Amino acid sequence: MVVLGPNRYGKAETRLVRVLRDGGVHHIKDVNVSSALSGAMEDVHLAGDNAAVLPTDTQKNTVYALARKHGVDEIEDFAILLARHYVESQPSVHHARVEIEEYLWDRIGEGQDSRPPGERHSFVRSGAEVRTCVVHHDRDGTTTVTSGLKDLVVLNSTGSEFSGFIRDEYTTLAPTRDRVLSTAVSARWRHLPRDFRSGTSYGFGASYSEVRRCLLEAFAGTHSLSLQQTLYAMGKRVLETREEICEVRMAMPNRHHFPVDLTPFGLDNPNEVFYAADRPYGLIEGAVLADDAPGAGFAWE
Amino acid sequence: MVVLGPNRYGKAETRLVRVLRDGGVHHIKDVNVSSALSGAMEDVHLAGDNAAVLPTDTQKNTVYALARKHGVDEIEDFAILLARHYVESQPSVHHARVEIEEYLWDRIGEGQDSRPPGERHSFVRSGAEVRTCVVHHDRDGTTTVTSGLKDLVVLNSTGSEFSGFIRDEYTTLAPTRDRVLSTAVSARWRHLPRDFRSGTSYGFGASYSEVRRCLLEAFAGTHSLSLQQTLYAMGKRVLETREEICEVRMAMPNRHHFPVDLTPFGLDNPNEVFYAADRPYGLIEGAVLADDAPGAGFAWE
Amino acid sequence: MVVLGPNRYGKAETRLVRVLRDGGVHHIKDVNVSSALSGAMEDVHLAGDNAAVLPTDTQKNTVYALARKHGVDEIEDFAILLARHYVESQPSVHHARVEIEEYLWDRIGEGQDSRPPGERHSFVRSGAEVRTCVVHHDRDGTTTVTSGLKDLVVLNSTGSEFSGFIRDEYTTLAPTRDRVLSTAVSARWRHLPRDFRSGTSYGFGASYSEVRRCLLEAFAGTHSLSLQQTLYAMGKRVLETREEICEVRMAMPNRHHFPVDLTPFGLDNPNEVFYAADRPYGLIEGAVLADDAPGAGFAWE
Amino acid sequence: MVVLGPNRYGKAETRLVRVLRDGGVHHIKDVNVSSALSGAMEDVHLAGDNAAVLPTDTQKNTVYALARKHGVDEIEDFAILLARHYVESQPSVHHARVEIEEYLWDRIGEGQDSRPPGERHSFVRSGAEVRTCVVHHDRDGTTTVTSGLKDLVVLNSTGSEFSGFIRDEYTTLAPTRDRVLSTAVSARWRHLPRDFRSGTSYGFGASYSEVRRCLLEAFAGTHSLSLQQTLYAMGKRVLETREEICEVRMAMPNRHHFPVDLTPFGLDNPNEVFYAADRPYGLIEGAVLADDAPGAGFAWE
Repeated sequence: MVVLGPNRYGKAETRLVRVLRDGGVHHIKDVNVSSALSGAMEDVHLAGDNAAVLPTDTQKNTVYALARKHGVDEIEDFAILLARHYVESQPSVHHARVEIEEYLWDRIGEGQDSRPPGERHSFVRSGAEVRTCVVHHDRDGTTTVTSGLKDLVVLNSTGSEFSGFIRDEYTTLAPTRDRVLSTAVSARWRHLPRDFRSGTSYGFGASYSEVRRCLLEAFAGTHSLSLQQTLYAMGKRVLETREEICEVRMAMPNRHHFPVDLTPFGLDNPNEVFYAADRPYGLIEGAVLADDAPGAGFAWE
Repeated sequence: MVVLGPNRYGKAETRLVRVLRDGGVHHIKDVNVSSALSGAMEDVHLAGDNAAVLPTDTQKNTVYALARKHGVDEIEDFAILLARHYVESQPSVHHARVEIEEYLWDRIGEGQDSRPPGERHSFVRSGAEVRTCVVHHDRDGTTTVTSGLKDLVVLNSTGSEFSGFIRDEYTTLAPTRDRVLSTAVSARWRHLPRDFRSGTSYGFGASYSEVRRCLLEAFAGTHSLSLQQTLYAMGKRVLETREEICEVRMAMPNRHHFPVDLTPFGLDNPNEVFYAADRPYGLIEGAVLADDAPGAGFAWE
Repeated sequence: MVVLGPNRYGKAETRLVRVLRDGGVHHIKDVNVSSALSGAMEDVHLAGDNAAVLPTDTQKNTVYALARKHGVDEIEDFAILLARHYVESQPSVHHARVEIEEYLWDRIGEGQDSRPPGERHSFVRSGAEVRTCVVHHDRDGTTTVTSGLKDLVVLNSTGSEFSGFIRDEYTTLAPTRDRVLSTAVSARWRHLPRDFRSGTSYGFGASYSEVRRCLLEAFAGTHSLSLQQTLYAMGKRVLETREEICEVRMAMPNRHHFPVDLTPFGLDNPNEVFYAADRPYGLIEGAVLADDAPGAGFAWE
Repeated sequence: MVVLGPNRYGKAETRLVRVLRDGGVHHIKDVNVSSALSGAMEDVHLAGDNAAVLPTDTQKNTVYALARKHGVDEIEDFAILLARHYVESQPSVHHARVEIEEYLWDRIGEGQDSRPPGERHSFVRSGAEVRTCVVHHDRDGTTTVTSGLKDLVVLNSTGSEFSGFIRDEYTTLAPTRDRVLSTAVSARWRHLPRDFRSGTSYGFGASYSEVRRCLLEAFAGTHSLSLQQTLYAMGKRVLETREEICEVRMAMPNRHHFPVDLTPFGLDNPNEVFYAADRPYGLIEGAVLADDAPGAGFAWE
């Protein structure tokens, strides 16, 4: 007999920009919100009975309405607000997952702007890097929060080796004592369980800044014998520095930079001229956690 | 104390095109291979000791060498070959995951080509649709196989309704008895466990064609009261038709087509002129399985 | 003194899907319309005086309204209709450029569909290939029409050579008598001037099909000594076959397929196993035209 | 009779990263080089005779070899070096076009890095913004240089209006006295002709920084009655500030931010909550130049 397995549905990529006016000084919040609900959804799948379905169009409306009612401060706080709203307001919704991406902006002319504070309303996107979070809330009362970032592209121009690896019949790679190491960091980190509630400040903004700093400093400060070692060092640095975090998961493509062989042209290449390759690429994925970290439950789903 | 959690590493997106010559008639296989290995990898993470690491560069070489040695027939067979090779040849590799995408080509002039068979070597890409598979092989001897497709874009111009849903304070959507339903199907289906071995034919090609046909026919043939219902019908059709499949997982974005309000211009719009929206979009995810399906283990990882 | 140079403005990428009902048999037209207007636009640039500006929002509305009023048959006809509308209805608009992309769909189950014609309303996207056109209309009465296609990916697995080229101090490439030749064709072709008017049929659909066939057949049927030669042969075939076309312009990336060196593994590679590279790629651009082709004017802008 | 029209060929997107070591302090240059050559190319198109063809593979090699021989300082200087090299070394090459994109990096920990200067070799990508240039060199001795940028995303949260526009039968847009104005600036600017030669410093780096600053300040400082007005003000600011520049061309999509109608939920929306739309979008293109600017020749091709 055919049965329904795990399922969820929702509205993906609701683009919201909120402008906060503090006198003439404006602040902007630029986010992309995706919600996914699950619960008593047998009838809609088996019979097309929508009585348990809160439309995805309503979920879009809810994002905008709650942004107006409560503002959007840290993305984790807004995601908690939304996830609790869905579960607490609809009996058929037993579980909500809310994912938010945030795009970062700088103020134009920051530092040298001579305009009075009453005319500060111009911004420039500050990077390809994206701040992220995923919040789950279940009707059993459990809330999980992971924060993260993606597209943080970094490069060490020296201080990286790769040798001592297995050599089998298909191995042609030469060991190297000095290579370029570059990656685009995707990382998510899990916050220790707390009684996460809307309207309380958990300091997600400061936490994000510090974790990001740890990741960058560990990448820059680790003499790397392998990208795996660097990944582990980055996660370790976060866990040893930030007591609110109990696990870090990372995916790091090895963006290969191959020294170009210039000998056909009578030239040497003392690790100066590199070809930045697209595909294929190494891909290193790993989790680093506290040995006493509580179970993750659905946090990573 | 900080510890290492789940991890894997490998070479992603090795692009391989194989030309098979059958006299003057050529056949091409155009694939994208990603491998991810795991096992005794503590030392590389904690100390940068690479003694257990088969380089990702070697994994790339292996793809090409095994393609030459054994050919590339159905992608599932080639993935099984690769996964078993890694686990069986390296004691430190306890588990391998191989994912392959295949891009499909038609012969140019098929049907009306007047050239002799000895000159058939011209091809045209046949669609945006991609055939996929993911194979796991573990040193405990277990092999799992899922096949799939993505970017299969379909549309029903009528025969779709959406009504009877929850109305809360943020609901503005009007029920509809006739709408356009369009989605880009991403589907993966799990094969019943067998003693999968390289070199044996399991009929993956015929299985793929039939599953694809089931998905299309169920999409086209279901009068839809919700996209969830359509998703379930598609999975059910596969399971009731193909005895080698025990579970289907799908993700289907609702590519909204909104009827344009033309009343400001004195025009009606009897479901004829639509705006195809990008974001936000509904996203429906679900699994459909046989009630006696064996446990999936790591098949979906 | 600072002055205003060439300028234009408009609404880009208005996504329109039109469903035509012929009894129970549906037909769909899936297009992406971009319009760009120019004319008496000094005041808006220099002083922000919008009196000459037809809003881009209005241009979007016009696309939908005219689609309802006149239908959408061949994209060239619809582009002519739009371009003439803007120039003829607004004195400040002296010139209009309308570009349309069309995405192609097949009927699901075509050929083997046992459903009665009254239930034909299910479609599947037929490829990555996109049909295009660019129409210009000027208030001097001139209309130009170019048709085109892009993302038509083709491959010859033999019948291609490259040798006899310049060898300078930086040349390492070996000549080859047998290589894979693959490209993604972007082509546009210019129609001979006629008295293009809305509402008249110029047979753009049949013309498109035949030009596409010429391009494919010339690609497949040319023993290629260089991609330039193939490009020229493709354009020549169109011009010699289609009397309504006076010029063809093409851009064809050389999607390199490099034979993998398998000798380190004790294997030969008789042009069987290839690495499909991303970047860098050769890029060949060229125009082929009738020696008595009339001047192009603004047709290619 | 069929004849060959304008044509060019070359190697596109050669990815080059150069590491310059200044003691222990490293500097990186991350660029993407595309070259396109034209000249006596009749025979290759008509007969497949490659005697006049410098292979695109050689062009790739040349990029790497000249980077080693001469370094890569400002991208315009490197493009001039390459373009002159091709024309001056190959009689069949009459004209060369070299386009370079540069991706920008910051030093990790800049400002707060406590490591000694001897260990500064870690970088983070600083933004989505890309610096560009296009250089042409002809065998008649003419060199043209345009510099530019793309993907510079900016936003004014107030200080923008749009009213007084044409209202026709398809106009529904309401005038507004306060809107969000956002765009992704693509700009190219033409340098006044000089005797551009390799090895001489023309101050392209400082010029770039100042032009970018002008563009940002004019965007931020202009109370906008239309995006056209803003575009013109940005170009004008550059021309009035930088005497080495004689023309600026810009393409600026209007990234619409629509205030969400919250009245169905009993909420007002004082320009606080916006929906950031993808498509369609306005697109404003225009040139601003000095009235005594010399002819552009092939500079913009």
